Amino acid sequence: MVDILHRTGIKSSPAEVYAALTSTEGLAGWWTTDTQGKGNDLGGVLKFRFRAGGFDMKVLELDPGKRVLWEVVDGPAEWIGTHVVWDLDQADDYTIVLFKHQGWAEPVEFMHHCSTKWATYLMSLKSLIETGKGAPHPDDVMIDNWD
Amino acid sequence: MVDILHRTGIKSSPAEVYAALTSTEGLAGWWTTDTQGKGNDLGGVLKFRFRAGGFDMKVLELDPGKRVLWEVVDGPAEWIGTHVVWDLDQADDYTIVLFKHQGWAEPVEFMHHCSTKWATYLMSLKSLIETGKGAPHPDDVMIDNWD
Repeated sequence: MVDILHRTGIKSSPAEVYAALTSTEGLAGWWTTDTQGKGNDLGGVLKFRFRAGGFDMKVLELDPGKRVLWEVVDGPAEWIGTHVVWDLDQADDYTIVLFKHQGWAEPVEFMHHCSTKWATYLMSLKSLIETGKGAPHPDDVMIDNWD
Repeated sequence: MVDILHRTGIKSSPAEVYAALTSTEGLAGWWTTDTQGKGNDLGGVLKFRFRAGGFDMKVLELDPGKRVLWEVVDGPAEWIGTHVVWDLDQADDYTIVLFKHQGWAEPVEFMHHCSTKWATYLMSLKSLIETGKGAPHPDDVMIDNWD
């Protein structure tokens, strides 16, 4: 099993970052405008849609201001059963986001793509909170011939 | 051992991407303006400097238009002995860059940071080649409280 790892620091409170990871409005502001479901509903399913498909995430853990954990229950075969983990902490004037997309079976080329794409979405999350404007799909950053 | 993985697609030829990874002018255009050494000199050492230190990379493999491999010989303790690998291929109108920063001893928090930061530098490489303007240090994208 292999993992995608990222870290960003956002000049904001953990509560504000947590809200952007658990509210439909927040998620739609940095990941995809086509977001359905309740991110603050433990055991519920979030549906994220993009130009070429999407992901359904079951909300497995919610610790306000500290942690959000999703399990991928539908989407690309390589994603199903993987976990997306958001751990929040404070340092200096920042909320530190430690991100993990855990449990890939193999380090396939698609995983390389997703690692880079996640980084652009983390920058979108940071921008949304710090400036009020993110870059969610369909206005996301194009990184290669796949998306 | 754990690895950082990324993928980008650049609307350009493999030769042009290879040049940006092996010429001092190319490297200075997307990674850091403070680049010394010869990237096309097998066995030579490239010195990359940033606001908070830098990295010395020994050029271990050069396959024009296909592959560049560096070994980190000086820099942060976590980086020493790791390998940075650039594999190039063609797909559609793109040169595909498969990037690996291989051989981290542990998935420490600094590795999360470096994963995100590498993604922003890959976007800088893409931008340099597609538009003529990259975002090398000291004009790099700030991702968190560390850099």
